[in-house]
Amino acid sequence: MLILGIDPGLERIGYGLVRREGSKLIAVGQGLIESPRIAVPDRLRIIDEQFQKLLEQYKPDSVATERQLFAANKTTALDVAKALGVILLACSKHGLPWAEYTPPQVKLAVVGNGAADKKQVQFMVTKLLGLEKTPKPDDVADALAIAICHAFQSRIAAQLKQ
Amino acid sequence: MLILGIDPGLERIGYGLVRREGSKLIAVGQGLIESPRIAVPDRLRIIDEQFQKLLEQYKPDSVATERQLFAANKTTALDVAKALGVILLACSKHGLPWAEYTPPQVKLAVVGNGAADKKQVQFMVTKLLGLEKTPKPDDVADALAIAICHAFQSRIAAQLKQ
Repeated sequence: MLILGIDPGLERIGYGLVRREGSKLIAVGQGLIESPRIAVPDRLRIIDEQFQKLLEQYKPDSVATERQLFAANKTTALDVAKALGVILLACSKHGLPWAEYTPPQVKLAVVGNGAADKKQVQFMVTKLLGLEKTPKPDDVADALAIAICHAFQSRIAAQLKQ
Repeated sequence: MLILGIDPGLERIGYGLVRREGSKLIAVGQGLIESPRIAVPDRLRIIDEQFQKLLEQYKPDSVATERQLFAANKTTALDVAKALGVILLACSKHGLPWAEYTPPQVKLAVVGNGAADKKQVQFMVTKLLGLEKTPKPDDVADALAIAICHAFQSRIAAQLKQ
């Protein structure tokens, strides 16, 4: 099962692809979808085009995103939600199952502590995926953490079904 | 010039089409885009399909939306922003100019008072468009008010250009 983890944003969206083979996790790809500071509708079109390419290139089986929490800047939160809307629309068009996790859920799954800090999450992402270096920038590391969280959750769900 | 006014939402999106001919305003169409209470990505796909049909049916020259203000329910605000993202994406794909107005801007343009109440706005929408009845429901009346606001603003902008 190939999972596409997404760290939502408008200026930059982190993505990370993790394949789950039994209890093993393999990093398959990672990067950023970026949009220049132009009018919002045109930024959304750029994000849509890049996300579609990502789906065609990797053909993931499911998509997991981080649930937005309200930051100090409410306008930013609404713009990030617009970009997330474009991504979820593409998921529905491609018939891709979607899951959403809060930051504490991701931290609990990856570190075992829902209040873990960024460094601890990045350390565990690096370790769990057997990477030589810590994934950079933070958006990418977060996206991989979200994919790992969904890999664990979907494994538990599959085991409960059996 | 045909303007499509949009009152954003997830469950129901109001729309209203207003043609500006010099200083005259004509109501061309109105209604609701509705989505059932299913998973958000699938709701967004339904909204996208209905909005595309609307663009094909009426072929508007521009789209105006109401800027979101933060309501008590933040989760709702984020879901409404997701739906708005889908609409703005379609605007960019169709090369449609987009404008956004705050509720006080709409009220000021339609009633002449940025703090006007719903009844006053609906009264003026009915009068300015020469309608026999007040447009219903509120989402539709709001969408027509947004279209009227943009008709006035774009007329002023056109006059300033000359």
